[in-house]
Amino acid sequence: MKNIEAMSLRVKDNQIELLDQQMLPQREVWIETPQPKDMIAAIKSLKVRGAPLIGVAAALSLAKLAEEGANESDFLAAAEALRASRPTAVNLMNAIDRLCCFENSYDSAEVVAKAEALFEEDVELCERIATNGSALIDDGDGVLTHCNTGGLATVGWGTALGVIRKAHLDGKKIHVFVDETRPLLQGGRLTTWELEKLNIPYTLICDNMAATLMAQGRIHKVIVGADRIALNGDFANKIGTYSVATLSYYHRVPFYVAAPYTTVDQECPTGVEIPIEQRSANEVRGVAGYFGEVQWAPKQAEVYNPAFDVTPSEFVSGWILDDKVYNLEEIHKQALKK
Amino acid sequence: MKNIEAMSLRVKDNQIELLDQQMLPQREVWIETPQPKDMIAAIKSLKVRGAPLIGVAAALSLAKLAEEGANESDFLAAAEALRASRPTAVNLMNAIDRLCCFENSYDSAEVVAKAEALFEEDVELCERIATNGSALIDDGDGVLTHCNTGGLATVGWGTALGVIRKAHLDGKKIHVFVDETRPLLQGGRLTTWELEKLNIPYTLICDNMAATLMAQGRIHKVIVGADRIALNGDFANKIGTYSVATLSYYHRVPFYVAAPYTTVDQECPTGVEIPIEQRSANEVRGVAGYFGEVQWAPKQAEVYNPAFDVTPSEFVSGWILDDKVYNLEEIHKQALKK
Repeated sequence: MKNIEAMSLRVKDNQIELLDQQMLPQREVWIETPQPKDMIAAIKSLKVRGAPLIGVAAALSLAKLAEEGANESDFLAAAEALRASRPTAVNLMNAIDRLCCFENSYDSAEVVAKAEALFEEDVELCERIATNGSALIDDGDGVLTHCNTGGLATVGWGTALGVIRKAHLDGKKIHVFVDETRPLLQGGRLTTWELEKLNIPYTLICDNMAATLMAQGRIHKVIVGADRIALNGDFANKIGTYSVATLSYYHRVPFYVAAPYTTVDQECPTGVEIPIEQRSANEVRGVAGYFGEVQWAPKQAEVYNPAFDVTPSEFVSGWILDDKVYNLEEIHKQALKK
Repeated sequence: MKNIEAMSLRVKDNQIELLDQQMLPQREVWIETPQPKDMIAAIKSLKVRGAPLIGVAAALSLAKLAEEGANESDFLAAAEALRASRPTAVNLMNAIDRLCCFENSYDSAEVVAKAEALFEEDVELCERIATNGSALIDDGDGVLTHCNTGGLATVGWGTALGVIRKAHLDGKKIHVFVDETRPLLQGGRLTTWELEKLNIPYTLICDNMAATLMAQGRIHKVIVGADRIALNGDFANKIGTYSVATLSYYHRVPFYVAAPYTTVDQECPTGVEIPIEQRSANEVRGVAGYFGEVQWAPKQAEVYNPAFDVTPSEFVSGWILDDKVYNLEEIHKQALKK
């Protein structure tokens, strides 16, 4: 495999390494993932996260396995295990489908080439999304974002955060409001870390503060990412997105979703069909990070902890994809359908 | 002073002790507050919290000072310092005004009697609020609450949580959804602890999950407390309340505020006039509890951290006070004005 270098993923001398996102922003620890089972563990524990990044990381993991001489049956078994590690992430499924669909028969060189192509494509996709989206951002805007959708979620600039980065680089004076994004705090830990690296001014808030800032007129745009987009424009994203979308709708704040076209699930007519995984109760009973795990709720507290929620298309002002920005009218005409 | 025993405040042999709410639910630690300055420190650090409880605790602290022989000037200076410890809490101001308004001249016995009366009145107020409010709860309801408004926030049953407790005791099968209430987690730490003690079924959620539960039809009522109610029905409460109120309004979920009549600020015509204190950035950069303090955000992260927000009257389905439940029409006719 070629050597690869991204913000949170690298391949060097055929070793795949991931930046452990559970340790950020306090510690920058790179972990080796020699086998697909290590990659699965990293995905499940959110050491690696972000739908596009997971897709590329899983593909590289399979490519390494193939290159090391795995037979077809072991390769396909590993692919199936990887696919099941994050059922909501359609990028992961697409990436694995692509690697498992051989031109003639199972061929490790073909697998490696496809995985490398996925990496390059993600970088390009991010650039196109950023360019399409930054046209929607005005000088002086306060922009709210939820979760992390930057260089830690993709192998390129990111999706929603890539749009913000491009607007900033274009010289627009913007201020980012960062939802901390409970329970896993991807906003508080990761988006803040990226914005500091990029020198973009930001304010960190708890998720329940966004409404008040909207009422004060300090948030002019909201941009979020997506884990899966249905053909009718409904989309699944990190839990809390539906709340932000509803609040944006009430306060008449334009609300955008930014994602590569590969996030559109051609098999999924509406948001109702998107499966939502429930995660561990301990995530809500406390918090984990570089400091270990602390719990503040009663030990046996019953908890509701969906990983994602679904935002209906009527709350969305525009779908910023890599080919163009779609509006609701186009979506109603089935523009997302291939 | 008489001996007094409440869930989180007690007077025994003239010693005032508070249950340290920063240590709950893991540890039950009682702290002595021999001087008003100790009480001020406890209020500022949220070891004691909840508008009604703060008012009674501050009054008892002044009564002790008077009983120990402080002169009028020292007494009034301590009263002013206590008043400034939590500027949004109108109960605190009312309690202190009452203790500082002498029938003839400064008299420690009068101060003590008034502080003891404040305690008894709060217990009775809570009972009346609970009775008025529980009539609004139906068998089978899912009830969302925010922050902590129970026996840890008052010296009686509480306000919003008192209503829930009464409905449960009346035999209504209800399920409580508890907003964890970032940044200080009064829901996750305290409301859960109280509900476990009371054997009331509950589910703990992150603040950003309430919208999704509303969309699923699992939340039938929302009840919150108030730190200050303006004459037009706008009210200040824990940050995040405005977000819940907006989401309830959109999803057509009845939204109630429960508080004693003393929470109405006769000098405050609308919510615009309510001062909102900003709290320390470190509260949002991490979390503190019995385990100490952990931080997950970058050390210098800029933060927005208002203690309260203001919910406009048009989002409120009913104001559950101790004398009756007010509706918007009555409020518009200035029914809250004395």
